[in-house]
Amino acid sequence: MNKSPIGIFDSGLGGLTVVKEILKVLPNENFIYLGDTARVPYGTRSKEIIQKFSIEDANFLVNKKVKCLIIACNTSSAMAGTLLKKKLKIPVFDVIGPALKYTNKNFSNQGVIGTRATIKSGAYKVSQSLATPLLVPFIEEGEISGKPLELILKKYLDHFKNIDSLILGCTHYPIVENLIQKIVGKKVKLINPEKLVVKEVREYLKEHNLLNSQRSLGNREFFVTDLNDRFVTVAEMFLGQKIKPDLKKIRL
Amino acid sequence: MNKSPIGIFDSGLGGLTVVKEILKVLPNENFIYLGDTARVPYGTRSKEIIQKFSIEDANFLVNKKVKCLIIACNTSSAMAGTLLKKKLKIPVFDVIGPALKYTNKNFSNQGVIGTRATIKSGAYKVSQSLATPLLVPFIEEGEISGKPLELILKKYLDHFKNIDSLILGCTHYPIVENLIQKIVGKKVKLINPEKLVVKEVREYLKEHNLLNSQRSLGNREFFVTDLNDRFVTVAEMFLGQKIKPDLKKIRL
Repeated sequence: MNKSPIGIFDSGLGGLTVVKEILKVLPNENFIYLGDTARVPYGTRSKEIIQKFSIEDANFLVNKKVKCLIIACNTSSAMAGTLLKKKLKIPVFDVIGPALKYTNKNFSNQGVIGTRATIKSGAYKVSQSLATPLLVPFIEEGEISGKPLELILKKYLDHFKNIDSLILGCTHYPIVENLIQKIVGKKVKLINPEKLVVKEVREYLKEHNLLNSQRSLGNREFFVTDLNDRFVTVAEMFLGQKIKPDLKKIRL
Repeated sequence: MNKSPIGIFDSGLGGLTVVKEILKVLPNENFIYLGDTARVPYGTRSKEIIQKFSIEDANFLVNKKVKCLIIACNTSSAMAGTLLKKKLKIPVFDVIGPALKYTNKNFSNQGVIGTRATIKSGAYKVSQSLATPLLVPFIEEGEISGKPLELILKKYLDHFKNIDSLILGCTHYPIVENLIQKIVGKKVKLINPEKLVVKEVREYLKEHNLLNSQRSLGNREFFVTDLNDRFVTVAEMFLGQKIKPDLKKIRL
């Protein structure tokens, strides 16, 4: 058993959908979350800058003595996952690997949507893919229903032909999952990488006897690189509950 | 006369609409543009972080020996304009002052649209104001026509009651000026801060005998903090012509 915290980072607050899953599946684990809200979004930037930012994020958590690291951002996973796995001495989990493995094993005509950087990276090796760059701003603005979003989504999803599965390749997207399901129809299985990566982390920790066996709820810390009122609102939307304890601001 | 370049910075590429105006009105001036594309957008962030980034942007240009500085970003102008004017020894022009003066002198029921940070700052002291946060992503994605943008714009602009003028309080917005005009109707005068700030700079340089009197076209340099293919496309949309010479990437 190991009481050290799990480290989780994201370009911003979308990675809190991974935290939401941890709270469900690994409630006794201590963890530290870092959201790089001063430089979000990553998905529109170059590989070089995404790697630079991701290394800074990871180093912050490594210095906090985390027992493993979850890259809770598809863009960082795609652009810096391999690099971080090579560079760091602790186990590193990216949000893409488990989803890709599961989907390719269980479906034959898979689709994926994600940021420009994620899709351009080719990290999701599936049949059909599309960058859907306006979804993140819509979701971050809380515009998660209504005609404009529906029209944008229809236009995007019209790209896919006869898919049997669709990976939500950005940690923001589960927020509009119902609308996506409505548009693509019930026959298309939506895949949440958040759930699959947390499942993999749980199995790894169990197998290596690294689970925290304390019976009380884990200790949780939330760090961000920029903070304003909006961020609290957006964070609570992703987390599905109040942020406790408060978000703490740090400089990388 | 003074051959030193004019310095211009923006959070990203929107400030190129100011450059476009300089090319028209002050074609013989040398200038250096800096776009902080590694950390764009600023408009969703806190005052503290916007000030930090703006100071870094300004220092880069001051070290290049610019004769004056134009803050070609409404968010930076609103959040860091006063600070930079106090801190720097060269003349600093912000994009808000001239537009505000002109509009309040000539109109009686003025509106302004801008980023969350710009509107929250209260820097535009006019009758009615609204943050319109989805416009920047739409414009940066080149989604500058079509139903979704029109619906979003209608929803936003419906906020304004009986205005006679509307300040486009973000350097991105001129790109969708025609659509905005169509929605608010011909009776509402749209105000472009870009044009007014460049006019003010020209008058200042003339009055202080600081114009560059060379007869050839000025030398132009474009720096960005992150670079990918998309940025070149977006830059050319704002500038209305090819970027020459190339964008150069630097680290702040």
